[in-house]
Amino acid sequence: MKITDVSIVPVLLSGGSGTRLWPLSRKSYPKQFAPLLGDLTLFQQAALRFAPDASQAGASPAFSAPLVVTGSDFRFIVVEQLAELGIDPGAVIIEPEGRNTAPAILTAAFYLMARDPDAIMLVAPSDHAIPDALAFREAVGRGLPAVEKGRIVTFGITPDRAETGYGYVELGARPAASEGPVDLVRFVEKPDSARAEAMCASGNFLWNAGIFLARAADMVEAFRLHAPDVVDPVAEALKKATADLGFLRLAPEEYARVPSISVDYAVMEKADNLAVVPFSAGWSDLGGWDAVWREQGADADGVALTGPAEAIGCTDTLLRAESDAQVLVGIGLDNIVAVAMPDAVLVAPKDRAQDVKLAVELLKKRGRAQAETLPRDYRPWGWYETLVLGPRFQVKRIVVHPGAALSLQSHHHRAEHWIVVEGTAKVTIDDTTQLVTENQSVYIPLGAVHRMENPGKVPMVLIEVQTGTYLGEDDIIRYEDVYARGQGAKG
Amino acid sequence: MKITDVSIVPVLLSGGSGTRLWPLSRKSYPKQFAPLLGDLTLFQQAALRFAPDASQAGASPAFSAPLVVTGSDFRFIVVEQLAELGIDPGAVIIEPEGRNTAPAILTAAFYLMARDPDAIMLVAPSDHAIPDALAFREAVGRGLPAVEKGRIVTFGITPDRAETGYGYVELGARPAASEGPVDLVRFVEKPDSARAEAMCASGNFLWNAGIFLARAADMVEAFRLHAPDVVDPVAEALKKATADLGFLRLAPEEYARVPSISVDYAVMEKADNLAVVPFSAGWSDLGGWDAVWREQGADADGVALTGPAEAIGCTDTLLRAESDAQVLVGIGLDNIVAVAMPDAVLVAPKDRAQDVKLAVELLKKRGRAQAETLPRDYRPWGWYETLVLGPRFQVKRIVVHPGAALSLQSHHHRAEHWIVVEGTAKVTIDDTTQLVTENQSVYIPLGAVHRMENPGKVPMVLIEVQTGTYLGEDDIIRYEDVYARGQGAKG
Repeated sequence: MKITDVSIVPVLLSGGSGTRLWPLSRKSYPKQFAPLLGDLTLFQQAALRFAPDASQAGASPAFSAPLVVTGSDFRFIVVEQLAELGIDPGAVIIEPEGRNTAPAILTAAFYLMARDPDAIMLVAPSDHAIPDALAFREAVGRGLPAVEKGRIVTFGITPDRAETGYGYVELGARPAASEGPVDLVRFVEKPDSARAEAMCASGNFLWNAGIFLARAADMVEAFRLHAPDVVDPVAEALKKATADLGFLRLAPEEYARVPSISVDYAVMEKADNLAVVPFSAGWSDLGGWDAVWREQGADADGVALTGPAEAIGCTDTLLRAESDAQVLVGIGLDNIVAVAMPDAVLVAPKDRAQDVKLAVELLKKRGRAQAETLPRDYRPWGWYETLVLGPRFQVKRIVVHPGAALSLQSHHHRAEHWIVVEGTAKVTIDDTTQLVTENQSVYIPLGAVHRMENPGKVPMVLIEVQTGTYLGEDDIIRYEDVYARGQGAKG
Repeated sequence: MKITDVSIVPVLLSGGSGTRLWPLSRKSYPKQFAPLLGDLTLFQQAALRFAPDASQAGASPAFSAPLVVTGSDFRFIVVEQLAELGIDPGAVIIEPEGRNTAPAILTAAFYLMARDPDAIMLVAPSDHAIPDALAFREAVGRGLPAVEKGRIVTFGITPDRAETGYGYVELGARPAASEGPVDLVRFVEKPDSARAEAMCASGNFLWNAGIFLARAADMVEAFRLHAPDVVDPVAEALKKATADLGFLRLAPEEYARVPSISVDYAVMEKADNLAVVPFSAGWSDLGGWDAVWREQGADADGVALTGPAEAIGCTDTLLRAESDAQVLVGIGLDNIVAVAMPDAVLVAPKDRAQDVKLAVELLKKRGRAQAETLPRDYRPWGWYETLVLGPRFQVKRIVVHPGAALSLQSHHHRAEHWIVVEGTAKVTIDDTTQLVTENQSVYIPLGAVHRMENPGKVPMVLIEVQTGTYLGEDDIIRYEDVYARGQGAKG
């Protein structure tokens, strides 16, 4: 079997939770799951880029269903966002905790190799922007001959500016205008600006995009050679992994023993079988609001707007109103980033974009929930958000996916009124089960054992009005839970 | 009777609706009614400044209950904000439409003169900041001897900078360090900066604060002399005014014929019986966010914060988070104003503060409600706000004052669920009346005639969940209304 005939498994790395795109990106809902550019989320764009049916074009290789490596908190978001695209994941592997890229990639390699000794993997972060998906798929295709020779192929982005925020890769000798794989001489850490200028001028240095194409077996072999301490604990964590509602959950104790290390440090900077495929059709790691401004596309004045944002006499400015219910107006601003959400607003000069992490640290110190969580809380069964929190009452909007169910539960300190406003709920209160449909309500007395399900084919939306002396999420006694969660745990 | 023994009637002008403090100040709820500086609103601070029991200090004159001139939309806000302070207004006169300051002042003068030929009025805008109330009351006291001589006394603010945003008054000759009334030579329009510098250097020019002390009869006489075209229509509008729930509502047709003109243009710039009392203890018209920054008090870096706002490495910057539920973070900002509200955010350089009106104009053009209205809607009986608006449902929080009642009404297109979360409601549905208390709910079927009242002594808070095909405020048939409103009018 010639290797270019086989299909490639996209390995989407989705465990990250960067703070540099706060307030849009939060630990509870990181940037890859947000519609940062366009209507789809970055994760969805990454999944579509390598979707099985996206490969009609001749020069583009075939892709299999994606393997997603993500965190426990995000597993249902992953499934939901793929379902919206009609993409069925080949597997969703859950890391009990994030250990940087090397363990995630090795886990995927082991997993794929066990199922197909010849499997080829394309390791791709899911929070990057690559506007021209077809061009990138073609670049992937150009990497296959090198993969056939046992190389690990990385993708090098032709720089369009002397960026100091990225690492670089140095290319070996290549035919003029070659687009094929070229030997990789070495990795260069993020440079100062003089060094960046020099590298860009030479034409022999490309940005390191952190995307890798290789046989799974070759990837494992590279780890065995260069990062042997990662190999055994990852193998153990995978061996003892448990299947959980269709997810593969790595064994927590074993995974906790895996060194937390990036694949660049662990393997790539040491390996001597690397090749680079140059790519010049546009790429960004969206590592800050300045990068978002650049990718989003500004007008002649350098102004980029999202949502109900208005710029009056502004230049080189990014104004993002993330909610339709909130207008953002900038007047006379130059080189400013302003991002408005109903619970949090950021304003900073564009060239201070990397300091946004300071805002997150400060808000954490202040004990502000906005540092890490969004008002909307995603759960296995759907999501909810608090609409108003009073001294002895709380109003929530709750959305339950078709077929999903909340746990059978009771509360010590609060009673609840439920009013269904869309769809139909199946409600169990103590020994009684009833259907509650649009414009109907039920009352859950304090202490009553109750459950809410959506038996229908459309999302069910319900308004919950809680009254009581204590309204914390941890006032919950759980009796049965299809999602196997415990007492006082989330949702 | 010696004039210094009589008490002075504060005339609080509260009809204005400036746009320069958007988004805090909106047409539906202008800045004087907002807690712009401190816990009290500017209107409350103005009322307290001249409150009857604020005059204990020896040098301070006595004040009567205030006369408030305001717009129809604000009449219940005026009463509510005074009630919070325990101040009983002497009268609340409602202008059917704003006609600038001259007609409002003449109306008050006529009104007071009719009740007491010797009445003395202190005309004060209610949206200014005067931090030292006692010092200002003493300055008012110093004006009384001039009033006794038939003068109109204005107050001139000792400039602390060459401000180009204010008009000035030129003083006549005065004894060194005199604090008493001095002849006013002339008014000077807002100057350019060279002229402002020169005036400040001379020491003979003070800012025109737009505050006037005079016998009501002398004020009327000044209008007769200098603005006779204002006199008759104002007199007619007052003569045909109607009493309405304790308010005095000027006759709309007559008032519409009154020229819209400021008291400075109409009278003061022409009168020759003016005196000035200098005042140097601090004053601002809060005419823009730059003025708010100045008055609010900045730290050593020039940073002023309100609410959950955080400044990281900022200088000369105002960051205001107007809601406890929304954090605002500024990083590395210089000379910036950022004001965040859950429905609207403004960011601008401080020296562009006067251009905020452009934002309001643009948002109006875009048809954005945020240009002129707040999410919270104030009504005679209390207020409400929309918590969430869905395709076929809407959730509102409704707060009803003790003793207040909504109109008896019905809707064609929606049913309502009411859940009481604080206090007790008296609910009428068709022929049945019941008490509904905390943690209880009622259902109002589509078409049912219903009313909500608060029979208790504390505010009643209720969550309303509407479902239906049309949820506009104008789907209302009103049967009885203690506030005398009509079909489809605001609820």
